[in-house]
Amino acid sequence: MPEETRDAAATEMGRRVALLIEYDGVRFAGSQLQANAITVQGVLEEAIVKATEEPSRVALAGRTDAGVHARGQVAAFSTASRLDCETLRRALNAWLPADVAVRAVADVPAVFDPRRAAKRRWYRYLVDNGDVRPALGRGRAWHVAGELDVAAMAEAARQLAGAHDFAAFASRLEDAATSTIREIYSFEVSRQARSIVIDVTANAFLPHQVRRMTGALVEVGRGKLSGDACVALLEGPPASAGPAAPAHGLYLMRIEYEEEVFRLDSGGPVC
Amino acid sequence: MPEETRDAAATEMGRRVALLIEYDGVRFAGSQLQANAITVQGVLEEAIVKATEEPSRVALAGRTDAGVHARGQVAAFSTASRLDCETLRRALNAWLPADVAVRAVADVPAVFDPRRAAKRRWYRYLVDNGDVRPALGRGRAWHVAGELDVAAMAEAARQLAGAHDFAAFASRLEDAATSTIREIYSFEVSRQARSIVIDVTANAFLPHQVRRMTGALVEVGRGKLSGDACVALLEGPPASAGPAAPAHGLYLMRIEYEEEVFRLDSGGPVC
Repeated sequence: MPEETRDAAATEMGRRVALLIEYDGVRFAGSQLQANAITVQGVLEEAIVKATEEPSRVALAGRTDAGVHARGQVAAFSTASRLDCETLRRALNAWLPADVAVRAVADVPAVFDPRRAAKRRWYRYLVDNGDVRPALGRGRAWHVAGELDVAAMAEAARQLAGAHDFAAFASRLEDAATSTIREIYSFEVSRQARSIVIDVTANAFLPHQVRRMTGALVEVGRGKLSGDACVALLEGPPASAGPAAPAHGLYLMRIEYEEEVFRLDSGGPVC
Repeated sequence: MPEETRDAAATEMGRRVALLIEYDGVRFAGSQLQANAITVQGVLEEAIVKATEEPSRVALAGRTDAGVHARGQVAAFSTASRLDCETLRRALNAWLPADVAVRAVADVPAVFDPRRAAKRRWYRYLVDNGDVRPALGRGRAWHVAGELDVAAMAEAARQLAGAHDFAAFASRLEDAATSTIREIYSFEVSRQARSIVIDVTANAFLPHQVRRMTGALVEVGRGKLSGDACVALLEGPPASAGPAAPAHGLYLMRIEYEEEVFRLDSGGPVC
């Protein structure tokens, strides 16, 4: 049965299920299905076939690049399975590889689209500012040795917050007709021991936006770019705002919807 | 040149160097050199040859099993190299694989034996007590779902502290004539968010002692073993004290000597 028909058939069956997902991005060629590559969507669809005994198409809320991690990615699929949510969660975790875990499962309305319905997205970027490259924490943060002025980074981040045209901080803009205005609700930089934690929440992000903004903030931290010059990067042409920070420091932390999708009675806080 | 001769020759050259080392144990068949297996000692000796252009035999303070991590392992080797400590540190980190890093380098007396000279050893065991198996934190903690009574674990640990014959908690006792009495100076169990952190410091440990003690403490936490029964395990025959906790939750945190070996002026605290 062609994929579209299969998905439509499942939707007619009336049940749609949302998943709250954690993954280690290192091994994946990104979140979205690709031929001949290991992707988050791919391993989720394989586990769903095994757990429910029927194929389903998975939709993801956030598109993450190769190497990017997630603590709170949201996925949804339609299914005729009658397994209750907790049984489904356990079955999926039993079939999924060790670097992907389903943290919570919830029944959602049949029309639920995790990407379109998302209201706010929170990403975290971790910079390891220790003198020595980490062995245990490698692949979990971007190692940047040398002094970083965190106060200057925090002030530049504060100035980038708000509604702006972020085209200069984007890559791979597919459609020139689509708006590149996004609204950042909060953008905070703080030091926690040898880590620098960059938390940014917006209605949505352009491709590579968080990593390019992080790259610019680290240049501010190094004293190579003033805060004003960092904010002035917004005025440049598309994709002009310097190199992107590497993928392995980036975490999709949480997707927020109009209403809470997951109840985590026993699982503790989401992040 | 045979290895012993080579090492003796280097010692005659008069310089002995100590290394403070961090590693991710997942890929290693343990710390000690083995034929046809990847070991911490093996990759250190390979990096030293490349950095100093001469072979050296490496001695390690703590023998860690396959899968066990280290934040503060101590190694030492003799060399004719005249590279200063900071240059040596950078050169070794450039040659070492990503899962091993040299945090500090120090010149030490020619007779320094990192194992025999050690006065105190601090190991940490991490239990992930979340409901769902971790994806990002896998291989970094032992995932134990379900309620654990941390207060009962802490009390049992407190009772195991002190000088005892720990043979019941050991494995692979090679020599019946050697004393199996060890002194635990501190043994603490605490909850930090969804993690349970077990810190134990002693003059020395028997093989597998920390992992077997942790296995018993988790049984106490589950309510399957009383605190008194846990302490009574000390009375049993060698290696009788239940299963060992898995290697991947264990960290060699710090080795202490009569005098401080490493000055970490710029690297922050050791752990």
